[in-house]
Amino acid sequence: MKVKEDSLIVLYDLEDGKKHYVSLKSSKEYGTEKGIVNLSEVVDKEFGSVVKTHKGHPYKVLPCTLYEFIMHKLRRFTQIVYPKDAVYIAFRLDVKPGDLVIECGTGSGAMTLVFARYVGKEGKVVSYERRKEFAEKALENLKIAGLEERVEIKEKDISEGFDEKNADAVFLDVREPWLYVDKALESLKVGKFLGVLVPTANQVIEVLKAFERFKVSDVEVSEILLRKYKPVPERLRPEDTMSAHTAFLIFGRKV
Amino acid sequence: MKVKEDSLIVLYDLEDGKKHYVSLKSSKEYGTEKGIVNLSEVVDKEFGSVVKTHKGHPYKVLPCTLYEFIMHKLRRFTQIVYPKDAVYIAFRLDVKPGDLVIECGTGSGAMTLVFARYVGKEGKVVSYERRKEFAEKALENLKIAGLEERVEIKEKDISEGFDEKNADAVFLDVREPWLYVDKALESLKVGKFLGVLVPTANQVIEVLKAFERFKVSDVEVSEILLRKYKPVPERLRPEDTMSAHTAFLIFGRKV
Amino acid sequence: MKVKEDSLIVLYDLEDGKKHYVSLKSSKEYGTEKGIVNLSEVVDKEFGSVVKTHKGHPYKVLPCTLYEFIMHKLRRFTQIVYPKDAVYIAFRLDVKPGDLVIECGTGSGAMTLVFARYVGKEGKVVSYERRKEFAEKALENLKIAGLEERVEIKEKDISEGFDEKNADAVFLDVREPWLYVDKALESLKVGKFLGVLVPTANQVIEVLKAFERFKVSDVEVSEILLRKYKPVPERLRPEDTMSAHTAFLIFGRKV
Amino acid sequence: MKVKEDSLIVLYDLEDGKKHYVSLKSSKEYGTEKGIVNLSEVVDKEFGSVVKTHKGHPYKVLPCTLYEFIMHKLRRFTQIVYPKDAVYIAFRLDVKPGDLVIECGTGSGAMTLVFARYVGKEGKVVSYERRKEFAEKALENLKIAGLEERVEIKEKDISEGFDEKNADAVFLDVREPWLYVDKALESLKVGKFLGVLVPTANQVIEVLKAFERFKVSDVEVSEILLRKYKPVPERLRPEDTMSAHTAFLIFGRKV
Repeated sequence: MKVKEDSLIVLYDLEDGKKHYVSLKSSKEYGTEKGIVNLSEVVDKEFGSVVKTHKGHPYKVLPCTLYEFIMHKLRRFTQIVYPKDAVYIAFRLDVKPGDLVIECGTGSGAMTLVFARYVGKEGKVVSYERRKEFAEKALENLKIAGLEERVEIKEKDISEGFDEKNADAVFLDVREPWLYVDKALESLKVGKFLGVLVPTANQVIEVLKAFERFKVSDVEVSEILLRKYKPVPERLRPEDTMSAHTAFLIFGRKV
Repeated sequence: MKVKEDSLIVLYDLEDGKKHYVSLKSSKEYGTEKGIVNLSEVVDKEFGSVVKTHKGHPYKVLPCTLYEFIMHKLRRFTQIVYPKDAVYIAFRLDVKPGDLVIECGTGSGAMTLVFARYVGKEGKVVSYERRKEFAEKALENLKIAGLEERVEIKEKDISEGFDEKNADAVFLDVREPWLYVDKALESLKVGKFLGVLVPTANQVIEVLKAFERFKVSDVEVSEILLRKYKPVPERLRPEDTMSAHTAFLIFGRKV
Repeated sequence: MKVKEDSLIVLYDLEDGKKHYVSLKSSKEYGTEKGIVNLSEVVDKEFGSVVKTHKGHPYKVLPCTLYEFIMHKLRRFTQIVYPKDAVYIAFRLDVKPGDLVIECGTGSGAMTLVFARYVGKEGKVVSYERRKEFAEKALENLKIAGLEERVEIKEKDISEGFDEKNADAVFLDVREPWLYVDKALESLKVGKFLGVLVPTANQVIEVLKAFERFKVSDVEVSEILLRKYKPVPERLRPEDTMSAHTAFLIFGRKV
Repeated sequence: MKVKEDSLIVLYDLEDGKKHYVSLKSSKEYGTEKGIVNLSEVVDKEFGSVVKTHKGHPYKVLPCTLYEFIMHKLRRFTQIVYPKDAVYIAFRLDVKPGDLVIECGTGSGAMTLVFARYVGKEGKVVSYERRKEFAEKALENLKIAGLEERVEIKEKDISEGFDEKNADAVFLDVREPWLYVDKALESLKVGKFLGVLVPTANQVIEVLKAFERFKVSDVEVSEILLRKYKPVPERLRPEDTMSAHTAFLIFGRKV
């Protein structure tokens, strides 16, 4: 497996295990505290090769996972949907290769990236974002991740509804999602799922009311808690702190 | 979107919302407490159509999600990997369309199904299972889900290692995974991730020791907790009980 | 330490570790599946002695903790406040020997018991309960636990407020606690804390609004989650299920 | 209720709600960013009175709870036992007015304070601490809290066991508690409980082995998770982060 001109790579410091996440598409050289790496030297090398900085410090070239991209490299200008939530959302919405997925809004594009990965080349994500600057910056994130071809970002408001019909999944991550439940259902295939992400209990309550109003079925409200452990075999214990809350996830089916 | 001869469907009772999960491939008729549905009548109908039992009771025909299949229809003869864990595992292992994924053991095939979904038609899952009866029954589950073509179940022990090299991901769900960490690394591309699932802290400790021994990098030990809420807008509150533990998830990278 | 006529005891089966929780005050003999224990034989024995059933089966006589009484012996006719919550409530309300504590409602008396324990002989708990049958049954529970002298159960509604002033702590466990926040504050010493227990997020929201209205300070909203492990040294792991929710706890200070 | 010469008080800023936790016993004046409070002026005032700094800024004088003392005022020179854990420990060990409680080690004295509060004036806590400086500093904490008369700190190692017999409860918070389980049991009344606090799973495993060896009964291993919410009625949601782990709590009974 060779590094390509547009690859996302990890420069792995063999001495201290420190990692640098680098987009070859975005720049020609990459500066570390141990010297500069000429990125053109990296292209066409096998993953696992070693590259040296101008000061001679060696880095191993590894592939960058989408998880690493979202957590460490994605430019964030909004609160993002964290991977622990994003993957559960994608699965509960039954997103798979070939699907048409609608989401609103795009935000920084973290959820968009997960949808884009799982719809595959043959699928499509249409992502609505009314703020021009967010739409543009999110597109930039998608390009760096190499997934922009599967995504269409529409810079428009959804108060008039979505352009698409027969979507396999619809996902709402907006401030007042209860205003758009009917629009979302109109664009969704019968039997398929709508997902909503909100941070507060008050919003959950409003979404549930809208779900009742529009006879949404199979309703689930969930939280995903991720608890990490210190990976020390002699002293195994959970980390001292954890994220206590990212969002409430709400799912329902069009019947 | 039409129902096919091998579709998985949901028969949704319009009166009480009760759902029946039905494989058209597996049988010709399906008995409910409200009468028998002739499944040949369902084929070629649009999803969303209504079908009636011989007693005249109407059911709406909906598509069955993979989540529903795993939770409600999969025949379980072992402890399964639950969706909340399975989707996080697949994402941390960076599984995507086209990948080659190795896992051991197959068990009931729940994890296999998630891998199979996400590698797409162009990808492949090789699943090792030394117990003949499990291998056979898991294959049956894969067939019903319609994903068996992306999976090869190998009925053999992994003490001699895996046949494949250059896997994009390796996943171990066996009693003593620390015995196979070296074999797993041999079969993995450099820079890619190995995942391990174990239920006890003692096993986590042993896996971490093996990870140290074989210089596995980027180690993470995690638990995923899923907390559901009663979806009642007037009385929003978490459910009374929850699963407190399914498994510890361990991830590491070949450097 | 000798068993008294009104002791609560545990009959501990030396063979299988099974426990029976017995109130000497309540009955003269106790039937187990291994025979009947004559309880008058137990009085004046040292704790740790062995007593035999009429069939000769031996039980060890142990003291019963308040935790055991609440979890295993208390007659429940309402949802109880669980020990994990009760002890945190008592501590956040700074309940200590000599205090005057007001609570409403009494319910089955589990919270009452914890308050009664910690105010000591020199303290007092006044517990309001408008339903006569609950008041009577709760008193019965308090008597069996031997803590009834520290408690006064008032069978009356609190819409007119509490009779007491200068309480060291006030605790509300009623359906619409926001209606009584002002009354609670009137009865509370300045600088002291009010505690509220509610099961739903909607109620938390209403209580917080009332706290704002009446300028309650130092507000905390908390949940206590208790996660137990299977105590097997070779296979240490959390139990499979846990209580996911008992109640939200709300605290605030009169300033 | 009047402020005494040795009271712990809260100076509550009426403008911004900021709190200062002050021991009258420890000093004669207290400096805030809004001026100096002459503490002799506070003595004999009613709680709830207002006192002014030399610059004229008003503070309300409130009583300080033990919770506040432990969280905000206690001098910490070791990891402390947090209130959420301390109160559950005290309750599972059935600590009540009049009890004799043994603990080791004293550390900063947070657990000691909770035991001291609940044994009351008629009870006693004997706390072993082999490090002279910790013993001295912990005593200082106890004095400021006004609970030192109920506690005897013994500056000695417990490898030879405890001096006391017939304790109502024994609590171990040491690095290798499994070495002292037999000693702890010797000092405990029959039927009473031993508690152990350890941070790692490895230590839990060793303690459970010792419990098996010495036939400890009624074993429980627990974690207490405290999840706080932002107390905003319009946007109710959990706080962003929480403590993910303080300690594993282990309980067992001498039979």
